Parts: sequence; structure tokens; C-alpha cells
Amino acid sequence: MRPSTSRPRVRSRDSVYTGRVINDPHSNLPSVRPVDSNWILRAEKRQLTLTKPPGSLGRLEEIANRCVAIAESMTPTVSRPRIVVFAGDHGVCAEGVSPYPQAVTAQMVLNFLHGGAAINALAGAAGADLRVVDAGVASAIPEHAGLLRRRIADGTRNFCVEAAMTREQTLAALQVGVDMADEAAADGRDLLGFGEMGIGNTTPASAIAALLTGLPIEAVVGRGAGADDAMLVRKMAALTKAIALHGPHVHDAFDVLARVGGFEIAAMTGYCVGGAAHRRPIVVDGFIATAAAALAVRLAPNVKDYLFAAHRSIEQGHSALLDLIGQRPLLDLAMRLGEGTGGAVAMTVIRGAVAAFTQMATFESANVSGAA
Amino acid sequence: MRPSTSRPRVRSRDSVYTGRVINDPHSNLPSVRPVDSNWILRAEKRQLTLTKPPGSLGRLEEIANRCVAIAESMTPTVSRPRIVVFAGDHGVCAEGVSPYPQAVTAQMVLNFLHGGAAINALAGAAGADLRVVDAGVASAIPEHAGLLRRRIADGTRNFCVEAAMTREQTLAALQVGVDMADEAAADGRDLLGFGEMGIGNTTPASAIAALLTGLPIEAVVGRGAGADDAMLVRKMAALTKAIALHGPHVHDAFDVLARVGGFEIAAMTGYCVGGAAHRRPIVVDGFIATAAAALAVRLAPNVKDYLFAAHRSIEQGHSALLDLIGQRPLLDLAMRLGEGTGGAVAMTVIRGAVAAFTQMATFESANVSGAA
Repeated sequence: MRPSTSRPRVRSRDSVYTGRVINDPHSNLPSVRPVDSNWILRAEKRQLTLTKPPGSLGRLEEIANRCVAIAESMTPTVSRPRIVVFAGDHGVCAEGVSPYPQAVTAQMVLNFLHGGAAINALAGAAGADLRVVDAGVASAIPEHAGLLRRRIADGTRNFCVEAAMTREQTLAALQVGVDMADEAAADGRDLLGFGEMGIGNTTPASAIAALLTGLPIEAVVGRGAGADDAMLVRKMAALTKAIALHGPHVHDAFDVLARVGGFEIAAMTGYCVGGAAHRRPIVVDGFIATAAAALAVRLAPNVKDYLFAAHRSIEQGHSALLDLIGQRPLLDLAMRLGEGTGGAVAMTVIRGAVAAFTQMATFESANVSGAA
Repeated sequence: MRPSTSRPRVRSRDSVYTGRVINDPHSNLPSVRPVDSNWILRAEKRQLTLTKPPGSLGRLEEIANRCVAIAESMTPTVSRPRIVVFAGDHGVCAEGVSPYPQAVTAQMVLNFLHGGAAINALAGAAGADLRVVDAGVASAIPEHAGLLRRRIADGTRNFCVEAAMTREQTLAALQVGVDMADEAAADGRDLLGFGEMGIGNTTPASAIAALLTGLPIEAVVGRGAGADDAMLVRKMAALTKAIALHGPHVHDAFDVLARVGGFEIAAMTGYCVGGAAHRRPIVVDGFIATAAAALAVRLAPNVKDYLFAAHRSIEQGHSALLDLIGQRPLLDLAMRLGEGTGGAVAMTVIRGAVAAFTQMATFESANVSGAA
């Protein structure tokens, strides 16, 4: 247990999360060991004994081998997946960057809780359970037993004007994610997915991509949930303003997160670090989730070893962020929904990969002749 | 029931399938209706009401829409998938085109029956049941309750010397597949996968690709299960001989199938036609399965409407065959195993797509605001 010596300053009118707080992300984030490459080698060696031509399961073999190394076991399990959706609102919505009203964030949280969203269906199809976390939604969400109330504040500030979050809020939001990873590990969850809901949050994700990569805004901006041309112009103007305002003051990933991130983004970053600390394979969804994962990798580089990129989003900034986490996506299905939906689909691929590795017979045990 | 007026000539020393026989593939194959595009339009319209930005589930939406049209129902089900693996041996192995001895076909059939192959693990992970059919394995397979004995003969003839199959054998092998589709439909199976096992069978698949597309052999040949350079040279020489021998006598897809196909390939072709006649979504695995599906589309063009290409195989001839069936693959995982393994993984994507379509709330029912 980490000592809780300070409290986030909050401006929420709703219930406020009073959990533990990370004081310094570099000293207080859980520590993450790299994956031991000897386990990869052991897995590769076993793959050659299984009844199939060498390498013929392609990327399924890579997936299974890494799951072996993460679990440090030749019989890794991925049979109890969990997906956590983190929700938060964004002050930058004041700039007119999303076609949806900000109230949709809270409405969709309720939809998750009632089982009516895409992530409910896709998590179900993947055999994953689902947790829904309010990390900082702007409007009050009605009582619901399933909702995990971890709100830092009622939405971030407009990062075109000031930093989106205070240092203390950022630390608290990171801790929300770390706590969710702790809970998943304590519950015996062996495959971790995550996603987000936050109207307007492709704008912070683009800002993060620009600040982490140095790429021009035009290279990292997209239409998000459906911006038209006029809205895209506003989005680029907002990003230009934000980069000019914050760029000179950004010294590390924590600064990026605090200045242009968001509550749900920081929570996802913390969840990646926490999941990796617990040595669980972590499935990264699309553009916004990858922005959070990229920040996690900057804060704790070994996190990279635990990440699987689920899919290639059609948001153009996604590729640059995938490069930062060093992962090639498993799927390319033109998805751009978020919520962890791409991650849920990718979980089924990972489950297949591990099933093949752990269940197949060897040439010897099955009396099958090898290649000449 | 179709009348059984002739029997395939067989040269098997083992039990011989004495089921129904298709006399003329054009008049006797089950008839396949095209999918009604009005159902696609209805599905597209409903997609717009579901709680997600329009189009944001990408290809999952296309998949679900086509499943609606195939089922002619706004609540299609894909919850009872079946995968059928058809096995057969190939006379062309005499040309030294595979690194594995021909006995491996029978050994792998036993491995399927004992649950030790990749397809057992991947079918299990996809929730699919598995049927294993001997359509013409060269060596006798020991008694096993799970084995469906439909052998036409103990392997095809060497198509570098003569036609791989007689006309009667080809018709009988097509019927094996049609029968398996009938059985799947009778068993209430609502999503059909299939695969193959046959040492050396990338060589007939390349020959089929060359004859159907007119492409040069160099464009449709690959290393299969692991040919080295010398073997690849032999494979190309065998294909050159075969195309020279049969090319002038090939007038339609049936000729292609009979002259350079195989028992398991013909059975897969029949399974595609039969599955489409029963209006089931059919998942096409890799290179060899796609060769069979391409023949099915040539024999009965409406079959195309029912096919989903599972994945892009690393066999280079696969792309040309995918063009023939008019389908873009769902996955690109560098797989090249066969057995229906890529199809099994793709089934999980299709199940997710249909789950989202049938389970999601609408903007109205969930009280979620739409875009401005």
C-alpha cells in the first residue's frame, strides 16, 4: 500500500473518489519488470514440436509466445478476460470539436450499465466481464449499482486556455487506473482490455500524439466520431492553439498527460502500468486507448512488453501512436468506435492463439511424421 | 432426394462411400438464390439507429448486414457454428512437391479425431463443433467412431500424367460436400466453416488458380507447408507439366476440378454450394479452401453472396483466388496452416459482429442523443 499523503483538488459537485494518490508518477507508479526473452525462446522451441508446419500459425504463434513470457509459464491462461471502460469529459468540447453534445458521455455510461452498447455485446461475445468507471464525467450519473464512481472532477478544463488537469488530478486519475488493474489481478483476471467513453476525446488524443511524436497536427488529426469539414477546421484550430500554449512547457509524458490529456486517458495510462506490473497481457483498443498506452510506455518503458495492439483504427494519428508502443495491430477492420470494442474482438484472437499453444499435440505424442 | 443413377468408379481397398451421386454439376447441384439486397438496405438502416457513430464498427457492420440478408431476418444467429475438415491424398506427391510424407494425411486425420490438432483448439475457442471427413485418403485410417468415411478412392492420380479424378469421382466428391452441408443445416448449424488436410494439396490449388485465372505459374505458386528452393523448382515443373497437359482440355470449372483438383477440394466445393443453398454464412479458410470456393462460384455464381473470406494466407496465389470469390479477407495474421484454422478465428469476428447488431440498444431506446 502506498501512503496517501495528499488529496487531489477537485471541483466536482458529485461524489468524489477518495482513494490512494500517486505523488510522483516516476517514483510512485508500480514497477514493471521486462518480459524475460528466455521464455519467448522456450515457447518458440515448443511451437516447433506441435503438429503443424513450423511457423504456419503466423502471428498466432507470436501472440502465444509472448503470453508464455508474460505468465512465465508454458501453460498461460487467458480464459478470464476483463474489459474496463473509463469515462470522462473534456473542457475542449467548448471549442466545438464533436458533433455530439457532451451529455452523451453520461448517457452512454448509463447505456453501458444497462447492457445496450457495442462494448456490452462484444465483451459478451469474447467472454469478458465489463467494469464501467466514471473517472470524471461532467454531468451527474444516476445511481446504478454497477457504476464505479472514481470521478476526479466534472470534466477537465479547456486545454486551449489552460492545462486540462492539475498535477494532483492527473496523479489521482492515474491511480484510478492502477487500482482497477489491482482489482482485476485480485479477481484472477488473466487478460486485460480497456476502453474509453468521452465526447470530444479524439482531440486530446491528437494533442498527445502531436506532443509525443513531434508530428504536425495535420498528421495526427482525424474526423473522430464524425466531424464534418467545418468541425475538422475547428478541431485543427483548437489543436494548434493547444500545442502553441503547452508545447514550450512540456518536459515529459506526465506534463503531456496533465496539460492535454483527460481523466479517462490518465486512468487508462495507470491501468496499463498496473496491468503490466501484475504481469497480465493487456489489449490496447484504438486511437485514444493507444494514446494512453503510449504515455504509459513513456512513463514506464517495460510496459511495452505486455501490450497487444488490437486493431488499426481509421483515425490517421493511430499509426504514429502504434509505433510508440512498438506493436503491430492484430486486426484491421476499419473500426473507430472506442469503448474497448476493437480490444474485445482481438481478445478472441488471443484466446485462440493460446488455446492452440496449450492444447495441441506434439508430433511425438500424436505419432505424426515430421518434414523430411 | 436426387436419383442415384450411376456409381463412381473407385479403386479403393478401403470402405467406399455409396451415397448419392450428382450426375451433372450444372443440373444436379443444389440451386442457390442470390441474397436479396433489400435486406442489406434494411440492415444498414437499422445500423444507423444503434448507439454508436454511423459506420464506426467498420467491417463488423458489413458482416452483420450480410448475415441479415443471408438469414432474411433482422435477428440472424451465428451461435451454432460447425467446421468440417475434408481430407484427401494427391497423386502429384509422386513429383516430390511436399516435405512431408503422404502418410501424414492419415496421421493428421487421427490427430483431428483425438483432438490434438490446431483446428481442434481453434474450433473449441470459437465454440464450433468439428466434423472430420475422409474424402479419399491414400492410406487406411484405423476405426474411429468420429470419422465420417466418404472416401472416393485411395488418393487421386498424378495430374502430371493423367486427370486427377474421373468425371464420376469428381461428381461423387462434390456430393460428399453437399451432403455435409445438408447435415449441418439439418443439425441447425447457422455458421459454416470448412478446411482441408491433404499432403501436397497446395500444388492442385496452384493449378486451379492458374487455370481459373490464366495467371502464369510463378504468380500462383508458393512454398506451401515449407518447400525449400529445390522443392519449389520441382513444384513449378510439375505445375508447368500439368497446365500444358490439361490446359487445352479445360472448358469449364468442372473440368478444372476433375483434372487438377482433389477429393477434399471437390468436397469443399460441394459444401460451399450446399451451404449457400441452405442460406448459411460460409467462412472460407486459406489458399486451398479458397480454390475450392472459387470453383463453387464458377459452378454456381450466387454462392459468392454467402462467402466470407477468413484471412489472407501468405501463399501468394491466394489474392487471385480471393478476387474470384469477390471477398476481402477479414484477418491478415500470416497464417498458412489450412485445416480451417483461419476460418475458426474469423468465426469469432463474425459472432461479434452479429452480437453487436442484434444486442445493441438504439439511440431512442437508450435515451442517447444523436449527432448535431
